[in-house]
Amino acid sequence: MSKPLLYSCWMSSCAWRVRIALHLKQIDFNVKTISILKTGEPGDQYSEEFEKINPMKYIPALEIHGHTLIESLSIINYLEEAYPKRRLLPKDIFQRTKARAISDVICSGIQPLQNLKVQKFSRPDGNLNFEWASFWISQGFSSLENILKESTGDYCVGNEITMADCCLVPQVANARRYKIEVSSYPTIARIDKALQDHEAFRKAHPSQQPDFPKEVPASFASQFK
Amino acid sequence: MSKPLLYSCWMSSCAWRVRIALHLKQIDFNVKTISILKTGEPGDQYSEEFEKINPMKYIPALEIHGHTLIESLSIINYLEEAYPKRRLLPKDIFQRTKARAISDVICSGIQPLQNLKVQKFSRPDGNLNFEWASFWISQGFSSLENILKESTGDYCVGNEITMADCCLVPQVANARRYKIEVSSYPTIARIDKALQDHEAFRKAHPSQQPDFPKEVPASFASQFK
Repeated sequence: MSKPLLYSCWMSSCAWRVRIALHLKQIDFNVKTISILKTGEPGDQYSEEFEKINPMKYIPALEIHGHTLIESLSIINYLEEAYPKRRLLPKDIFQRTKARAISDVICSGIQPLQNLKVQKFSRPDGNLNFEWASFWISQGFSSLENILKESTGDYCVGNEITMADCCLVPQVANARRYKIEVSSYPTIARIDKALQDHEAFRKAHPSQQPDFPKEVPASFASQFK
Repeated sequence: MSKPLLYSCWMSSCAWRVRIALHLKQIDFNVKTISILKTGEPGDQYSEEFEKINPMKYIPALEIHGHTLIESLSIINYLEEAYPKRRLLPKDIFQRTKARAISDVICSGIQPLQNLKVQKFSRPDGNLNFEWASFWISQGFSSLENILKESTGDYCVGNEITMADCCLVPQVANARRYKIEVSSYPTIARIDKALQDHEAFRKAHPSQQPDFPKEVPASFASQFK
């Protein structure tokens, strides 16, 4: 069998979630880097070539066992079912539901409102909108902090790393990018810190990706400082 | 055991998804109606009382077996595991992943961008923004139509009703509300039509909810015409 192929980009928090899940499950995979900026080139997520892979024109996408999977949480759910060994959902049904709910809070309630396309559409000049992004992330983090206070142990849900943690760490990085003081959310900050040194999270980090630039663009300065 | 209690509102497409799933699974439940508009009253999703139920200040929430569940897809996943009898995910793992991906496209890629809070934030005067909502739904539907063309049989994924159908029908209603010509997306329109007469979908319809008003507000005219 050929290795799974992940369409990924160092800048994308959605692809990052899937990279963490793949590394946690110790699945060996190849990466095809795709730009999430509109470049007009074939390697751009808005290109005709990529639209055939994902009609939503978003990364990530995962080619695996002859199928192309889209949507980060759907991909992680697939990995969880197909590779059950290192599980990303707790055994208890209510803990499992909590892990899914936290993942949905991030993937439906926070990230979509701050993604590049929406930021750019929110401004007449079509540029990044830091104010817009930080408003939605701050609102979401205030709620998420209260949710996590109830569910956390070492990580988002109890003491096991779950799919919720795969979603949290990239979202915290986005918060830093948009200059949010993450320490204002002590539970979020603590969980994020606890995961930084985990091998799977280190391997999945943007700085470890083949398309990570030698010089970080200015708009990412606060994320990587 | 007491009946499950759904926090719901006739206006909310997210609560509608869960109502469909509950009816498909023939689970008897009670409804507590909550306003999704900012009313300043205790029955408002932004109230302090409701924030204790869901810190995200969104409906739906489901009280069941002594637990309070949030996030529509997480609730539907719970129902799928706890009440497996009338299944909402196909048996085949790739079909199941497809049903999840279509649900995520709607619940992360379309609905969050057109919800009331985001629409109102997008305008200096804080009013509804039909242009904003219809832009994001149209963009999403163009992609979704292409995804569904590949996966559909009678419904979103093959010939079984899945969680993707629970998400599709309320999103099509939102499209009509924001004056999108749904017939421009023939696969979406056909699936939506095929589900209208299904008993579970009829029972879950906004018009069958206890808080449905005698006179439909003007901003909903195109949805209910």
